Amino acid sequence: MKIGTHPLLSKLKDAEVLKTFTPAELEAVSAEIRDVLCNLLATRTAHFASNLGVVELCLALHTEYDFRQDRLIWDTGHQIYPHKLVTGRYLQFDSIRHQGGLMGYPNPAESEYDLFMTGHAGCSVSTAMGLASGDCLLGQTTRQSVAVIGDGALPSGIVFEAMNNAGASGEKLTIILNDNKMSICPRVGAVAEYLDRLRSNPFYTGLKQEVVKVLGCVPKFGDPAERMLAQLKEGVKAGFLGGMLFEELGIRYVGPIDGHDIGLLRKYLRLVRGMPGPVLLHVVTEKGHGYQPAAQNPVYFHTPPAFLDEGGEPVTLGSDGSPPFTNFVRDAILARLQSDPLVTVLTAAMCQGNKLEPVRERFPERFFDVGICESHAVAFAAGQCKAGLRPIVDIYSTFLQRSYDQIFQEVCLQQLPVTFLMDRSGLTGPDGPTHHGLFDIGYLRSLPNVILMAPGYAEEVAPMLDFALEQNMAVAIRYPKAAALHVGHKAAELRLGRSEVIRTGTDGTIIAYGAVLDQVLAAADMLNDEISLTVVNGRFAKPIDDEMVRAAFERGFVITVEEAARIGGFGTAVLESAADQQLDTRRLQRLALPDQLIEHGNREALLEQAGLGPQQIADACRAAQDSLLGEGAAEPTLTGSSASPSRMSPIT
Amino acid sequence: MKIGTHPLLSKLKDAEVLKTFTPAELEAVSAEIRDVLCNLLATRTAHFASNLGVVELCLALHTEYDFRQDRLIWDTGHQIYPHKLVTGRYLQFDSIRHQGGLMGYPNPAESEYDLFMTGHAGCSVSTAMGLASGDCLLGQTTRQSVAVIGDGALPSGIVFEAMNNAGASGEKLTIILNDNKMSICPRVGAVAEYLDRLRSNPFYTGLKQEVVKVLGCVPKFGDPAERMLAQLKEGVKAGFLGGMLFEELGIRYVGPIDGHDIGLLRKYLRLVRGMPGPVLLHVVTEKGHGYQPAAQNPVYFHTPPAFLDEGGEPVTLGSDGSPPFTNFVRDAILARLQSDPLVTVLTAAMCQGNKLEPVRERFPERFFDVGICESHAVAFAAGQCKAGLRPIVDIYSTFLQRSYDQIFQEVCLQQLPVTFLMDRSGLTGPDGPTHHGLFDIGYLRSLPNVILMAPGYAEEVAPMLDFALEQNMAVAIRYPKAAALHVGHKAAELRLGRSEVIRTGTDGTIIAYGAVLDQVLAAADMLNDEISLTVVNGRFAKPIDDEMVRAAFERGFVITVEEAARIGGFGTAVLESAADQQLDTRRLQRLALPDQLIEHGNREALLEQAGLGPQQIADACRAAQDSLLGEGAAEPTLTGSSASPSRMSPIT
Repeated sequence: MKIGTHPLLSKLKDAEVLKTFTPAELEAVSAEIRDVLCNLLATRTAHFASNLGVVELCLALHTEYDFRQDRLIWDTGHQIYPHKLVTGRYLQFDSIRHQGGLMGYPNPAESEYDLFMTGHAGCSVSTAMGLASGDCLLGQTTRQSVAVIGDGALPSGIVFEAMNNAGASGEKLTIILNDNKMSICPRVGAVAEYLDRLRSNPFYTGLKQEVVKVLGCVPKFGDPAERMLAQLKEGVKAGFLGGMLFEELGIRYVGPIDGHDIGLLRKYLRLVRGMPGPVLLHVVTEKGHGYQPAAQNPVYFHTPPAFLDEGGEPVTLGSDGSPPFTNFVRDAILARLQSDPLVTVLTAAMCQGNKLEPVRERFPERFFDVGICESHAVAFAAGQCKAGLRPIVDIYSTFLQRSYDQIFQEVCLQQLPVTFLMDRSGLTGPDGPTHHGLFDIGYLRSLPNVILMAPGYAEEVAPMLDFALEQNMAVAIRYPKAAALHVGHKAAELRLGRSEVIRTGTDGTIIAYGAVLDQVLAAADMLNDEISLTVVNGRFAKPIDDEMVRAAFERGFVITVEEAARIGGFGTAVLESAADQQLDTRRLQRLALPDQLIEHGNREALLEQAGLGPQQIADACRAAQDSLLGEGAAEPTLTGSSASPSRMSPIT
Repeated sequence: MKIGTHPLLSKLKDAEVLKTFTPAELEAVSAEIRDVLCNLLATRTAHFASNLGVVELCLALHTEYDFRQDRLIWDTGHQIYPHKLVTGRYLQFDSIRHQGGLMGYPNPAESEYDLFMTGHAGCSVSTAMGLASGDCLLGQTTRQSVAVIGDGALPSGIVFEAMNNAGASGEKLTIILNDNKMSICPRVGAVAEYLDRLRSNPFYTGLKQEVVKVLGCVPKFGDPAERMLAQLKEGVKAGFLGGMLFEELGIRYVGPIDGHDIGLLRKYLRLVRGMPGPVLLHVVTEKGHGYQPAAQNPVYFHTPPAFLDEGGEPVTLGSDGSPPFTNFVRDAILARLQSDPLVTVLTAAMCQGNKLEPVRERFPERFFDVGICESHAVAFAAGQCKAGLRPIVDIYSTFLQRSYDQIFQEVCLQQLPVTFLMDRSGLTGPDGPTHHGLFDIGYLRSLPNVILMAPGYAEEVAPMLDFALEQNMAVAIRYPKAAALHVGHKAAELRLGRSEVIRTGTDGTIIAYGAVLDQVLAAADMLNDEISLTVVNGRFAKPIDDEMVRAAFERGFVITVEEAARIGGFGTAVLESAADQQLDTRRLQRLALPDQLIEHGNREALLEQAGLGPQQIADACRAAQDSLLGEGAAEPTLTGSSASPSRMSPIT
C-alpha cells in the first residue's frame, strides 16, 4: 500500500489516538507499520531490521505513556521509524532520509515527541536521567523518563557511568533494554554473553524445575555458610537470578519478557511505571520481526535491492560505478596483514560498515571487534602497540570522537604509532548531522605526535596505509563514504609532509585534501581553456607541506578544498603555514564546510550546497583570477565557505 | 632522614633486589618509603595519602612479579611514588615534580618499569589487555599483565568497556582493585556502594554465621523454585556473594583482602597469578596508611605546610598572593545559584580541585558530583538543559576531552545552552603533560553552536558566567590554575564576540586571550617609553571579534598571546578572521605553546620557556615594530611559537 492508504495510520494525527484503539486495532497498526517499512525498502537503504523489531514496543510505549509530557529517548535513534509513523509523520514518511525530508533519526525540529537527535550510542540513560533530574527540580512530579537502549549500545562506557549514577541517586527512571540478540556482525563481549544467560532464565524458558535441579547439585558437607555460598554462586551463574549485574548497581531488573506481545508489554510497562527508583525492563525482540519476504529469502534480503536504487548507499558508487574508498582500504589492510605479522585490526562494532568481514574471516586472531566501545578500542590498541604490534584502528570519524581522550593520553602522549583509519570522514549522506565526520582535522591537528593524511585517489590508499605503518608516531587517515577516483597509474612516492602535484599551471593553485580531488580535477577540466591551474593533492594536513605552500603563493591565487569543517581544517593548516612563512594570505580562499550543522542528503548535492561542487570550485578560480588581475573591485567581505572569492589588492 | 641515608632503599638499584629481602626487611623498606614520603611533604605538594596507601601493595607486586618482563600499569598514576622508589629512582627522588626532575606520574622515559604516562583515569585495564594481547600474539607466553586501579577510577566508562571485552576474551589478565574507601570528596555512585557491601562480606569481617542467619530469613512456603530464587537474591543482596558484578562479566573475583599485609598480598598474588583468564583481586587499603603525624593531627595535615612552601600549588598564588581564578569562579557560581533557581552545577569527582565544597554544602539539591564519569556528566547536563535547567559543567580542560563526543552530540548538535567551566586550561604546573589543558580551543572551535570565552582578570569572571548563562547555545569558559589579575574596576560590559580594549596605543596591538593578559600588561609596562601599544583582552575565541581584528591590523603589528596549543588556537582564530577580511597577515605574530609535549614545572617558568613571559612578549613587540619600520632585514623563516618576529615587507 502507498503512503496515505493505511486506514489506521491515517488516523494517527497524534500518538494519543493509539490509546483509543482496541488490542486488535493495535495489532492492525503494527501490520500497517510493517507494510510501510517493507515498501520503503524498495526505494532506499534504511535501517529496516531494527525498526521491524521495535514495532510492538513502540506501540506499547505510546499507549501507556504520553510522550508529549513524559520523556522518551530512543538510543542510537535509527529504530525511530515506527515512532515517527505514530507521532504525526506518517504522511511525510516517503521523504525519510531524502534531503529536506524526515531525518532517519529522532529530530526535535520535526516533532515534540523527539527530544534528542541521537545517532551515537549509549547516551540515552544519561540524558533521560538529566531530564528526570530537571523535572524533579522543576516540580514536574508526574512526568516520567524512559530510555530505550539496545543490547549493542549497552556495553558503551557511558551507560555504565549512567547506571552507576542512577543506581546511587535512586531517582525514578525507566530503562527499556531492547535485546534483539543479533546483529549482522557477531555479537561480542561479556555483556552479550550475560544477556544470553538471562534469556535462559527458567522463568523465561518455562523450565522452573531446572532451578531445583541445579541448586540440588551443591556440596552436602562442610561449613554451612560455605555450602550456602556455593549454592548461591551456582544459582547466579546458571542465570537463574535475573539481572544481578543491574541489581548490584542499584537498578531493579524486570524481565526478560517477549517484546512482540503488545498486551504483555503494556502490562509490564504499567508495572515498572509504578515502581520507585531506577528500573530496567528487559525486552527480547527479534530484528526483522514480521518481515515475511526476509524470512522466506533471508540471503537476498540481507542486502535488499534498495542498495542498487536511488538514495542512500548507491549514491556513493559514483558515476562510473567505481568502488568506494572503504573497499580499497579493506584490500590494503588485507594485503598488509598478509605481509606483516605485527599488524592487527581493531573495530568498534563497525565490521560491516567498514567492510571488514573478509579480514575477520581470514585473520581472526589479529582482528578485534570490541563492540561499541571506542574508548576501550583505542586504549587497547595503545597497549598492543607498546607490546610491539602495529595496530590499525578502523573507526568512523564521528565515532572516533568517543575516544578523543585516549587518542590524547594513551597514544599521542606516549608517542605510540597507532594507525587510525577514519572512514566516513566527510558527508555521510542520508544519515545526516549525527554521522557526518567533519571535525577530525580540527580535533586532531592541535595534538602533538600525530600525522594527518588523506588519500586523493584509489591508487594512493595502499601506499598511504603502508607509509602510516612505518611511522614512529600515530597517523590518522581520513576518507569519506564516496567512490574513489582512479588516476590510472601508481601513486607517486609518499614522503612525510609532502604533497603531490597532479597538474601544473601558472595562474593559480588548487590544493585538494582527500577525496575532493575528484571535484577539483573536474573543476580544472572546466577551466582548461581559461586558467592555467596547478592542482595539488594535499596528502598531509599535518605536517603541512610548507614548501608547496610557498610555491603556490608565489605562483598566484591559492584555493584549498576539503570535505571538513572550515574552522581549523586543512585550509587553516595552509593558512597557518602561509602566515608563518610571511606569505600574502590575501591570495588564499579556503573552501570547506560552513560552521553549522549539515543536514542529511545526497553527498554530491550537499557538497554543491556548500560551494564544493566542480562548477563552484571553477567559479571560485575565475573570481580569484579576476581579483589577482586587479579586475575584481568588490569590497572585501567576511567570507564563509561558499562566499565569493575576494579581491587580492596589495597592502596600502 | 635525608635521601641517600635509607639503608634498604639505597640498596635498591633495581626492584629485583626486593626478592632477596626477608619479610622483616620488606617491612623495613615500607617504613623507609613512608619516611621518604613524609619528608617530601615538608617541601612541596604531592599526592601523599594515595601513595602511603599502596606501599605494601607495591612491595608485594615487585616481589612476586618481574616488571621488567611482566607488565604493570598504575591507573591514574599519582600513586606511583613507592614504585619509583623501588625501581632505581630513590636517589633522584628529591627532584620529583620539579622541572627537569622526576615526573609525579609514571614516565617511560625514566624507567623500563614505567610503561604508560597515566594521569587520566580508567584506561589501565584496556592498556594492560592490549599488552597481554600483544604478548600473546608475539609468543611471549611467560609474561603477565597487571593493572592496578582505584575504586575512584573503577566507574569510568572505559573500565566497563574493557571488562566487557576481557570477560569475553578469556585471556589471562590480572586487575588489582585498590579500594581505599575514601577520598576528600565523598564517594559517589552505585559502584562505591557495591564495594562497601563487598567489604561487609562475612568472610572478610569474620562473621560467617551471618550468612546462615540471613539466609534463614527466606519464605518457608510456596513454589520451591521461587523460594530458592528468593534465597539467592537475599544472599547476593546482603553482599555475601563476593563480586558477582565482576563474575557476571566473566571476570573471576578474589577478595577482599587486607592491602597492608605484605605476606597476605604475596600469597594472593601467587594465587591469582596461577589462575587462568581475567581475574580481579580486591585489595582494601587505607589512604594515608602509616602516616603518624597525620593520624595525630589530621586537620593540620589535611593541608600540610608544603602548600605554603616552594613548588606545586604556591606558585599559582602569584606575587601579590591574589587568589586563583578557581576561587572567583566558585564565588560566581555561588552567587548565580543564589539568584537563579534554574542553575545546577555538575562536576566529575573534582569537587575539591574545583573548590566546590561550599556549593555542595549550600546547594546540595542542585549540585551533582557524578564521579570520574565525564561522558555521563555532559550527557546528564544536556538532559537537565532540555528539561529547562541551566547546568554548569565544571571540569578541567584536559578531562573534558573525555566527553568530547557528548559535547558534540548531546550539546552542540541539539544547540543546548550548557555552560562549561574549563578549569586548568593552560599549564597546570607540577602535574605535567597529562594534566596541562592546552587543546580545548582546538577541539571545540571546529564544532558548531558553541561560544568560547576566557576571562582576562578577576573582575570579569562573574560577568562572564552570567553572560554565558544567558546565551542560547553552549558556552565554554577557559581559565588556568593561576592567580587572577585584579584590574581594580568593574569589567566593561560583555557583548557576544566583542573584545575589550584595555590600553590604546598607535604602534601595534597585543591581543591576549585569558589569564596571560597579566603577562601582556607587564610587557606593555616594560615598553611604555618605547612603543605605543594597544592592549586588547580578547574575551572570545569564538565568535572572534572581526572588527577589533580589522582595527588592529590597520593600526600596525599584531601579536596574539595565549596559554594554549599554537595550532588551531586563539591566534589561529585571529588569523582566520584576518585572512577572511583580506588583511595583511604578515603583520601577525602568534605567541602560544609549541606543538610538543610540555614537561612539568612551575607555570611561570614554563610560560617563559615557551616565549610567553613578559620580557619575551616585550621583545616580540620590539622586533615586530622594527620589522614594520622596515628595519628588520632577517630572512623570513618558519616561525615556531617562540621564534623571533619576522619582517613585514610588502608584496613584491
